[in-house]
Amino acid sequence: MSTPDIHANGSVGKKAKLMTELEQFDEIFPELVDLLVNPGLNDPEKADAYRWFKEVLEYNVPHGKKNRGIFVVMAYKHLHPNANDADLKIARILGWCIELLQAFFLVTDDVMDQSFTRRGKPCWFRKEKVGLEAVNDAVYLEACVYRILKHYIRSKPHYVDIMELFHEITLSTITGQCLDMTVSPAPGTVDFAKYTLEKYNAIVKWKTAFYSFYLPVAVAMYMVGEAEEENHMAAKTILLKMGQYFQVQDDYLDCYGAPDVIGKIGTDIQDNKCSWLVVTALSRASPHQVQILQTNYGSSDEQKVAKVKQLFKELNLEQAFREFEETSYTEITELIDTYEGRLPKQLFTELVQKIYKRNK
Amino acid sequence: MSTPDIHANGSVGKKAKLMTELEQFDEIFPELVDLLVNPGLNDPEKADAYRWFKEVLEYNVPHGKKNRGIFVVMAYKHLHPNANDADLKIARILGWCIELLQAFFLVTDDVMDQSFTRRGKPCWFRKEKVGLEAVNDAVYLEACVYRILKHYIRSKPHYVDIMELFHEITLSTITGQCLDMTVSPAPGTVDFAKYTLEKYNAIVKWKTAFYSFYLPVAVAMYMVGEAEEENHMAAKTILLKMGQYFQVQDDYLDCYGAPDVIGKIGTDIQDNKCSWLVVTALSRASPHQVQILQTNYGSSDEQKVAKVKQLFKELNLEQAFREFEETSYTEITELIDTYEGRLPKQLFTELVQKIYKRNK
Repeated sequence: MSTPDIHANGSVGKKAKLMTELEQFDEIFPELVDLLVNPGLNDPEKADAYRWFKEVLEYNVPHGKKNRGIFVVMAYKHLHPNANDADLKIARILGWCIELLQAFFLVTDDVMDQSFTRRGKPCWFRKEKVGLEAVNDAVYLEACVYRILKHYIRSKPHYVDIMELFHEITLSTITGQCLDMTVSPAPGTVDFAKYTLEKYNAIVKWKTAFYSFYLPVAVAMYMVGEAEEENHMAAKTILLKMGQYFQVQDDYLDCYGAPDVIGKIGTDIQDNKCSWLVVTALSRASPHQVQILQTNYGSSDEQKVAKVKQLFKELNLEQAFREFEETSYTEITELIDTYEGRLPKQLFTELVQKIYKRNK
Repeated sequence: MSTPDIHANGSVGKKAKLMTELEQFDEIFPELVDLLVNPGLNDPEKADAYRWFKEVLEYNVPHGKKNRGIFVVMAYKHLHPNANDADLKIARILGWCIELLQAFFLVTDDVMDQSFTRRGKPCWFRKEKVGLEAVNDAVYLEACVYRILKHYIRSKPHYVDIMELFHEITLSTITGQCLDMTVSPAPGTVDFAKYTLEKYNAIVKWKTAFYSFYLPVAVAMYMVGEAEEENHMAAKTILLKMGQYFQVQDDYLDCYGAPDVIGKIGTDIQDNKCSWLVVTALSRASPHQVQILQTNYGSSDEQKVAKVKQLFKELNLEQAFREFEETSYTEITELIDTYEGRLPKQLFTELVQKIYKRNK
């Protein structure tokens, strides 16, 4: 699924079969943009705003890996193998709702972290004429989620469940962002006593795992009428574990990934972030090495960043990450083996394969 | 209603009768804070975030005039004169949802405008340890609206209508904010050709009038089962007109109000805002005076601000405002007189009385 097929076939029926899921997913985005902005563009009173919003959507939404959006479709296909094209279209549209939610989080995160690049381009707020107005644009992206839900699924029995799910997961993510911030305040006030693995796991769970892994599967579950708390809990256990694994990869790539592959220049060290690397470093460091971190972590001074990276090297963090990756993969596989819920195990296996040993 | 009664009566039943609406409204806020933060405070994983969020709520939500929140209760009392205490409590809680939405808008607006004070205190983002993290806090305030709706009215027939109403009005407000921004970009790039009364009215309608006037009344309408499009439209016509009047007052007070009374130091001139004052000034100014505005508007240089204020004086803007206030009040009264919808006219009259000739 991750390698798009190349094809030159023009007939529509055949084309749909030959298209990869990502291609079919991408094909829907322009329809959503039209739905979201055309009424506004056609209203002289609002046209200026909607010309701007169209750019906000096109710059910030469709250029990611789209894992989260595709996860909805993957999960839905497992839960409803006989789904027709109309059903699949709704699954893809709800996948795009997660991509919109993600875009909302990324635009605000980049403002808060004062980041420079995202998905291989300047962060939206860094663009000329944008600046802090990006905050309003981010909130627009969030509002689009509910516009889309209302348009496409208002008459469905799962409308309220899915709307409430988006509200709940948004709150979870905001909570995670706040935890992250209370642990990593402004540079210069770092308190490494708070950088524990326990704290790290809590941040990751709330800030990333819920919306990245539980949300897509939960959307698909509600779509097929699977609303029982117990079934959601059982799936959540595995999915949050995957989310944790995913975030550790992210932290690793922030420092060791190739910027042109991951699409951004990592700034976790500069931003004083409670990342898996610094937490692991602290658990292995001598008092002297802790002192080095204390002096150099959380600064944009290039020499200080280099000292932190040198220390990471001395502490063998790349090796530690490889070990974590293997252990984590084994643990997830075991969780899937012992899972007794109503979802097909193959769904979880497919999801974990999609992120195992990723380099972007 | 705007002058709280002073009383020393302690008995609960009597007390409720003697309390002003504002006092009864205020009394509910702590219950909402408990609902919103206690589960988080009692969860060790999330407690740090919720200690922070409690402060976000207490700093940003309950210190305004609370007009919008009280409007819900006023409208509800008119629409359901025999409402019992439990019903009135729900009306007050939904009023607080508007106050939360308003707090969300104000916190983000202050970040975007780089304002200094709000409601007589430093803007939240100006507080030590807050900064741009205020963006996440603002989004938290928004999320609280849906937590509260779910908790208190999930089982009611109007749950979905009210949830969708909050989504819709949030989008309207964001659209207004964007219109405002496309007209008043970064200082130095001002294009007065765009500062027309028509544009001004569009900004005000979308940015302020919907959430400040239509939203409170619409909430009360849905509460009593009044969901017909036609009835909402008829009320909207009068309420949006009131909203326009209210915003012109706001623009006037931004320049001419007493900072210790309005609770903030106006920055519309510095921020290059498309305010009623500058729009009116441009419509009266000679080419030479337009040139003075062009040179001095949208700068934080005190001398330039003084020149703009001097020009406003020469153009008799205070007098123009007084005239606008009278004309606008007459027009609203006429609209109420000819209103033939199902809402009691007295409701509209009471609302307009609440803002007529306000000084804060």
